[in-house]
Amino acid sequence: MPDTTANGEIEAWLDRFTRAANAGDPDAVASLFVPGECLWRDLVAVSWNIVTCEGQAAIADMARARLDDVRPFAASREADAKSADGIVEARIRIETRLARGDGYLRLKDGKAWTLLTRATELKGHEEPSGRRRPRGALHGVHRDRKTWAELRRQEEEELGISRQPYCVIVGGGQGGIALGARLKRLGVPTLILEKLERPGDTWRKRYKSLCLHDPVWYDHLPYIPFPDHWPVFSPKDKLGDWLEMYVKVMELDYWGGTTCERASYDAARGEWTVTALRGGKTITLKPKQLVLATGMSGVPNVPAFPGRETFAGEQMHSSGFTSGDHYVGKRCVVVGSNNSAHDIAADLWEHGADVAMIQRSPTIVVRSDSLMELAIGQNYSEDALDRGITTEIADLTMASVPYRIAPQRSLPVYDQIRARDRDLYERLDKVGFQYHFGADGSGIHTSYIRRGSGYYIDVGASDLIADGKIALKSRVEVERLTRTGLRLSDGSEVPADLIVYATGFGSMNGWAAQLISREVADKVGKCWGVGSDTAGDPGPWEGELRNMWKPTRQEGLWFHGGNLFQSRVYSLTLALQLKARFEGVPTPVYGLPVVHHTG
Amino acid sequence: MPDTTANGEIEAWLDRFTRAANAGDPDAVASLFVPGECLWRDLVAVSWNIVTCEGQAAIADMARARLDDVRPFAASREADAKSADGIVEARIRIETRLARGDGYLRLKDGKAWTLLTRATELKGHEEPSGRRRPRGALHGVHRDRKTWAELRRQEEEELGISRQPYCVIVGGGQGGIALGARLKRLGVPTLILEKLERPGDTWRKRYKSLCLHDPVWYDHLPYIPFPDHWPVFSPKDKLGDWLEMYVKVMELDYWGGTTCERASYDAARGEWTVTALRGGKTITLKPKQLVLATGMSGVPNVPAFPGRETFAGEQMHSSGFTSGDHYVGKRCVVVGSNNSAHDIAADLWEHGADVAMIQRSPTIVVRSDSLMELAIGQNYSEDALDRGITTEIADLTMASVPYRIAPQRSLPVYDQIRARDRDLYERLDKVGFQYHFGADGSGIHTSYIRRGSGYYIDVGASDLIADGKIALKSRVEVERLTRTGLRLSDGSEVPADLIVYATGFGSMNGWAAQLISREVADKVGKCWGVGSDTAGDPGPWEGELRNMWKPTRQEGLWFHGGNLFQSRVYSLTLALQLKARFEGVPTPVYGLPVVHHTG
Repeated sequence: MPDTTANGEIEAWLDRFTRAANAGDPDAVASLFVPGECLWRDLVAVSWNIVTCEGQAAIADMARARLDDVRPFAASREADAKSADGIVEARIRIETRLARGDGYLRLKDGKAWTLLTRATELKGHEEPSGRRRPRGALHGVHRDRKTWAELRRQEEEELGISRQPYCVIVGGGQGGIALGARLKRLGVPTLILEKLERPGDTWRKRYKSLCLHDPVWYDHLPYIPFPDHWPVFSPKDKLGDWLEMYVKVMELDYWGGTTCERASYDAARGEWTVTALRGGKTITLKPKQLVLATGMSGVPNVPAFPGRETFAGEQMHSSGFTSGDHYVGKRCVVVGSNNSAHDIAADLWEHGADVAMIQRSPTIVVRSDSLMELAIGQNYSEDALDRGITTEIADLTMASVPYRIAPQRSLPVYDQIRARDRDLYERLDKVGFQYHFGADGSGIHTSYIRRGSGYYIDVGASDLIADGKIALKSRVEVERLTRTGLRLSDGSEVPADLIVYATGFGSMNGWAAQLISREVADKVGKCWGVGSDTAGDPGPWEGELRNMWKPTRQEGLWFHGGNLFQSRVYSLTLALQLKARFEGVPTPVYGLPVVHHTG
Repeated sequence: MPDTTANGEIEAWLDRFTRAANAGDPDAVASLFVPGECLWRDLVAVSWNIVTCEGQAAIADMARARLDDVRPFAASREADAKSADGIVEARIRIETRLARGDGYLRLKDGKAWTLLTRATELKGHEEPSGRRRPRGALHGVHRDRKTWAELRRQEEEELGISRQPYCVIVGGGQGGIALGARLKRLGVPTLILEKLERPGDTWRKRYKSLCLHDPVWYDHLPYIPFPDHWPVFSPKDKLGDWLEMYVKVMELDYWGGTTCERASYDAARGEWTVTALRGGKTITLKPKQLVLATGMSGVPNVPAFPGRETFAGEQMHSSGFTSGDHYVGKRCVVVGSNNSAHDIAADLWEHGADVAMIQRSPTIVVRSDSLMELAIGQNYSEDALDRGITTEIADLTMASVPYRIAPQRSLPVYDQIRARDRDLYERLDKVGFQYHFGADGSGIHTSYIRRGSGYYIDVGASDLIADGKIALKSRVEVERLTRTGLRLSDGSEVPADLIVYATGFGSMNGWAAQLISREVADKVGKCWGVGSDTAGDPGPWEGELRNMWKPTRQEGLWFHGGNLFQSRVYSLTLALQLKARFEGVPTPVYGLPVVHHTG
């Protein structure tokens, strides 16, 4: 049954809000929010940016700066409101002078606690889908008729050669592909450059046993969802094949086997010069926009342990590991204790290696089943689908929770997890494995947002550690490498034929340093993280992921990355920003942040 | 607003029906149908066959023969009933001892006029989708772990080589692919043999200008619908790419570049011996089931005109035509006046050839736009989607209309079309083009069901004919070929450098004659057509398409074919029959028809 009182509350608030907005009264707008903690998150609908305004003053400031430009503003309730624990909430539709979109509203005592506004299409620049889809056949008779195949071949032959792309995306993983698909549908000429040969190789070339740790409902690409028999946890090669077919049928302009070597920006011309090596040939591209989608994990971190050059065995970063099958009976040491470290250690053990893990700091460990059922499955699962929560609705719900309040909402989930898997945690305790639930107990998702790592979603390796099958060295640092192994800070020595550094990655602006210059990398600053002032994510508080999917301090330079969920959701927000610029729609950016950290 | 009276009528009837069915009272079942014209169409749910029982006696007969075996029988209303013109109708759900399914009921004065019952899954043998989907990752640690890629490679290497498929499908067009996908999901080991190299080549290799004549909403494959920017009329190469990616991501076992040479059935062993040539190597397969999906159009009909060997120019069947670009300035004659004839004539004209069409019998001509808006668009269009008619609902609605009553339901549509496009028809009259609307005025769809051809969906060529740009010779026969052209029955001579025979195809059992034997081809008899006693579809009335997607007089031999709609819908019905046999579920077939025509 619809809760008509709740529906009425939502509608009344939206009515007051639109009236205040359209009257150009920023203080009236701000007064509709809860005094104290209130948050307005905007994805490009009002700010031409991704911002969360926290508190009435910040909200009034954005309203003052931006509302005149975007009104008339309209909003309506999209679905039945829910009411629980003093919060009334509903999905909404919005419309501005420039865009249509959606959003989410949470009320406390008739005032807004959180508001999300999100542009989903630019007026006059809608995607050619549904009723706008192309006809395909050219009816009538035409003596100069070109077939689809001829036109497609022509596009492939011209773009980047005789005709410049408006946008170049460096990196053809799920991020580059999802964004490429959005831009293709929006008619923005875009070239994706990927150093590996075939689309999907970004997954295929990783370690053999890899499956996605996120479930299928969370992983759909835009436009073509996985069919409903797709495995819950996609094996890497199967995902690779899906990406490859996606690139083909979405007609993306994708140059595999192409290394992007240099990029520099000519501010006067508002244009990049990008040098790429394709099939042994240097090609110069002149796009207006450059998107780095080279992996939110950035450049591999390889620790500079003394004595590295003296070690007689094999050493590699986790990103270079492929399979344990070459290491039967070998002594293998994995430095690190997050997801890749665990996956690689288990893979080595399964192949009959003698494996040790060196844990240098605590890890959030959660059993995959528990995480699915108690956390992610609330929005992404067959159960959620049965409750009417489609991927689109789930995505909007996720986006509706500002980073400020997300951690506190996770705490009860981790209380449940701790209780449910007490047995696992006791066994890890016994072997000295250092686990925790994050700096504030808010678990994996928060840790992912803060630093992109710090956890293991347990699919079996924790048992190997608890059972002593993978030897554990914890509460130690690596002091130096010797010819035969590692000397640790507790004075012990671990012999090794192979050392795998599962020691993570640097910030994405490291790619900018490699490709453009240190100066530009420093100018845009650190990527990812929200300023939580926890390990790997220094303060001050920024409220949104640094530099991701939004304007940076370097004109024409954008960062796109993250898991499949983020690739899907934020590719839309980024694509609309690029489309607006392509079409010459003015895009005054509100709230471009100050850079606090260079990497 | 739901029509509660109509809903109640449907529910009351279903209640009476299920009580009579479960009481094992065939006469009581039959008495619930309208005396005189009443029709029960069953797709495998009751009959293990595709049958339409017409009249109370036939209905009682099927009930007597089959209900004891399938009960308990349950049925419920699936959606709100509609009531108009004295008919109350609704989609329904059904369940038998063996299967779950859906259906459609139309009542007149409380009695059933038409009933559709259709199995959609076999109990205990459901597809592994939704909650039954595989996990993908193998959680836990496993020393003999095989990755998805390894298992997939193993399957590819073994099937048909060291392990026999249960089913071989000859022909890898949309028919073989859709059926292959169904069988893959159902876990029936199946090999698809296709003489062309790549999946999709069945479309790619056809004439260059070809686009689908059916719109996208009608053309989805099972499981992975086209994204919503897909063109209305799919260009052939784009469709080819889609089919190719579909084969890959659905993991079909598809042998391209493989010619099926011979097949023979060993009744004692219940097994086929199929000889195939793959990459120059002869391979012998031993499937239990053999499906011919080599195109419902069958073997090309090339008319045996006297003097064919004396003609000095080029001659080809329409299926061999690729593009007009070799015929600039040449004199080209197209024999025939249906879809391919028109498309090829227009293509030649567009390339600057001098084109004549020889029309030997009347053609149903309907403008594409009119057909879309007034006929097919009622169920398959953006409008239909807006009215809540998904592809699944549209498919069920289409299946719910028995062939006996389909023509009369089309008559008003063609009255509208005639009025709307009067101008076109007057212009065709003036140049002597013989058009009509089918033997009984029921138009294209009926003609397609009766003979698989007989019409042109006008996308431009009719204008060329009306304008005299394509020269027309009508009401004539070809008397003989000369060295330089064609001599016609009116004594005239048409000079030609190229003759294209757009003269259609034989019955699909012609493939059985080629592959198996004339004896088996004659035993199963003519394929397609319903016995309407009109041109190309001799009586007596059979009520269902002959031999299509259902048991034939040759054990283990099946025919699958048709457009994308039929490939989608009937692949399910056929797949369930094959799955039941694979699993050893007894499948007593009700109403295997007598063969009246050998081809």
